[in-house]
Amino acid sequence: MTESVFTYAAPGLKFGRGASDEIGWDVQQLVATAGGSASRVLLVTDAGVAATGHPQRIAQAMGSNGLDVTLFAGARVEPTDASLEEAIAFARDCGPFDAVVAVGGGSSIDTAKAVNLLLTNAGELMDYVNPPVGGGRVPEHRLLPLVAVPTTTGTGAESTTICVLDVLALKVKTGISHARLRPTLAVVDPDLTMTQPAMVTASSGMDILCHALESYTARWFADFEAKRPEQRVPYCGANPIADMWSEKALSLLAGAFRRAVGDGSDREAREQMALAATFAGLGFGNAGVHVPHACAYPIAGRVRDYRPPGYPDDEPIVPHGMAVVMTAPAAFARTFEASPERHLRAAELLGADTRDTADGGSGVLPRVLRGLMRDVGLPSGLGEIGYGSDDVDDLVDGALKQQRLLATAPIDVTADDLATVFRSSLEHW
Amino acid sequence: MTESVFTYAAPGLKFGRGASDEIGWDVQQLVATAGGSASRVLLVTDAGVAATGHPQRIAQAMGSNGLDVTLFAGARVEPTDASLEEAIAFARDCGPFDAVVAVGGGSSIDTAKAVNLLLTNAGELMDYVNPPVGGGRVPEHRLLPLVAVPTTTGTGAESTTICVLDVLALKVKTGISHARLRPTLAVVDPDLTMTQPAMVTASSGMDILCHALESYTARWFADFEAKRPEQRVPYCGANPIADMWSEKALSLLAGAFRRAVGDGSDREAREQMALAATFAGLGFGNAGVHVPHACAYPIAGRVRDYRPPGYPDDEPIVPHGMAVVMTAPAAFARTFEASPERHLRAAELLGADTRDTADGGSGVLPRVLRGLMRDVGLPSGLGEIGYGSDDVDDLVDGALKQQRLLATAPIDVTADDLATVFRSSLEHW
Repeated sequence: MTESVFTYAAPGLKFGRGASDEIGWDVQQLVATAGGSASRVLLVTDAGVAATGHPQRIAQAMGSNGLDVTLFAGARVEPTDASLEEAIAFARDCGPFDAVVAVGGGSSIDTAKAVNLLLTNAGELMDYVNPPVGGGRVPEHRLLPLVAVPTTTGTGAESTTICVLDVLALKVKTGISHARLRPTLAVVDPDLTMTQPAMVTASSGMDILCHALESYTARWFADFEAKRPEQRVPYCGANPIADMWSEKALSLLAGAFRRAVGDGSDREAREQMALAATFAGLGFGNAGVHVPHACAYPIAGRVRDYRPPGYPDDEPIVPHGMAVVMTAPAAFARTFEASPERHLRAAELLGADTRDTADGGSGVLPRVLRGLMRDVGLPSGLGEIGYGSDDVDDLVDGALKQQRLLATAPIDVTADDLATVFRSSLEHW
Repeated sequence: MTESVFTYAAPGLKFGRGASDEIGWDVQQLVATAGGSASRVLLVTDAGVAATGHPQRIAQAMGSNGLDVTLFAGARVEPTDASLEEAIAFARDCGPFDAVVAVGGGSSIDTAKAVNLLLTNAGELMDYVNPPVGGGRVPEHRLLPLVAVPTTTGTGAESTTICVLDVLALKVKTGISHARLRPTLAVVDPDLTMTQPAMVTASSGMDILCHALESYTARWFADFEAKRPEQRVPYCGANPIADMWSEKALSLLAGAFRRAVGDGSDREAREQMALAATFAGLGFGNAGVHVPHACAYPIAGRVRDYRPPGYPDDEPIVPHGMAVVMTAPAAFARTFEASPERHLRAAELLGADTRDTADGGSGVLPRVLRGLMRDVGLPSGLGEIGYGSDDVDDLVDGALKQQRLLATAPIDVTADDLATVFRSSLEHW
């Protein structure tokens, strides 16, 4: 029997210039709604974001609402098990808290999710990490209200139920995933994104783009086997509500992405990118992602010495959005056959000329993607990031570990499929 | 200074055939998330819905999850202060409860909201009713988890923060409005709507339609004066997110509305109407409604002897959606000048030919509305419902009491405007 039900959930949203000035009041309301009264707040951010002064300004505004704010500026860009454990130890030492506020990119927000989980539930981090890497333990107790304040326009981490991390000893990128991790309120203030460097805008924008494209082309919710209620997951496959958000996000990206990267002071482009990123979290993220996200895990996790501009240069890193989009053109060439009309419609929303279907149409979306990647200054392929043909087997092994994601693909994905995808992604131009 | 921020909030959603079989499990999760454990559940419905057997079936399924369910089938279609007080007294007598489930139309769901409010907060019903009719008291304590299960495809009550009621002694329709009234989870099972009579489908469908049109043409959120955080309301004016939902709902209605009324067994049309209704609650309801809804309050509240088919015939009633749409053509003719492009775009989504702009375009949306009203079998105007020219002054007085709604209109609405709207709505064809 096939599925007939889809689900949808999202945090509350406050969107617009100046929205981040009111967080003290919001925290008081959220804690009151949960049956308590707010006094101590933990603010989680990273050193780069702290250098902009935004977190301190937000903490000060919360102070004028009578809240006692403890600042933790040690979130790591691309969190690891070690960096999360450090944040958790800090929070357990300095607690108890009534609420958590995260100010930063997906990394700060994800760090806050892990901290919130381990402040309210017993055990250690690895107990809760997705199997087979971790124990897959389900949180027993409710978490504290969490307000997420994104300063990069990507990821949608402010709305999702997942915390992504590298497990250092295993060189694997994995996650913790549970409905209770979802922030209570997302506060999206486009003014906070104005200082985002061009490569961060480019990379995180690609994450939005791939969220939209993968959700839109994911297996249709009704094509899965029927689930019992306890088997339902936050990501239920493409569905009418996720489709609507994906389409709107693709339109916004078509109009604003190149402009926001080309001129970071373009306020309108920044606002539209912030809106597209919000749609990623609130909307289409409920469908799920598939091949490019599965491939991104080993691409980011096995990095050797790549250091992109605009990111901390103390250690090598492949930013999440960059890792995701690298295999996207090849992945969508492979999934095209499952729903040609969706792949073509997505390309059209991105501004492609869909009449050029010499290859039966399968090349249209990959072409518009490569053009966009090149225009926003991304590396030309996995080769430039430091991978070669000899790495393909290891990359395939890493992607195959992400069975939860691959199961959302519109086709059954084999090791051979993945090898072809990685090999075609070594050099895009 | 004008506003720069908009807000958005929605309950969780489970949508699809069979979704109503799993409510016991959902209730257990929701109560656990709120920090408790579920044992006693109050199920609120009305006699007409109870006659379909759906509430009993849902109660039985919850019983197999180990829940003890108390059934209250006394919700009134179009609730009054008296009917709500009766429901509250019943619930206070039979409580305490761990959760509330509402199965029915907007009336059952709104009754459950009032019951939930007065089960968890001190005082009496009228303390919480919107001023100037009631005391406008703000609920102090959090409410119980509320699962709303709509059986009519309209209103979006499963997602909104408002409970609508008639205050009998004053012959006025008003409401209770607060963020905490919002249901926690909406379970939308299109199979439950199959037995909905044609006039109920027509009337509640018109409510969806007017929600979409009024939200879409409401004053733009950034054209209001800047608000302090404590002044923000759930309805913040038209905004990019509400627009997206409105447009999608209008497209769904254009395809399914006439079919669902003409043939109630058309499963696909029923499913699309259920989806459109869900969009009303989850999405565009965050923007707010204006002139037609303000006019609907006195039209429904001052009914004399109108009794539509498909509704309980023990007393006169103007169903909410019917009351709302009666003045919609005239209202949109009046608001056209504020945003011609939005009025024309809405008409286009409803399938109108927008090239016929002999009247400058102001008649296009009213014409497509009148055509739809006629095709689904609605009364030909306020005259057929029992009102005449002599009633216009009283109707205007009643509409003027809804200042909260009129403030959302894209123009400043005068008594003269309202008189013209009512007079033009006496006879549509």
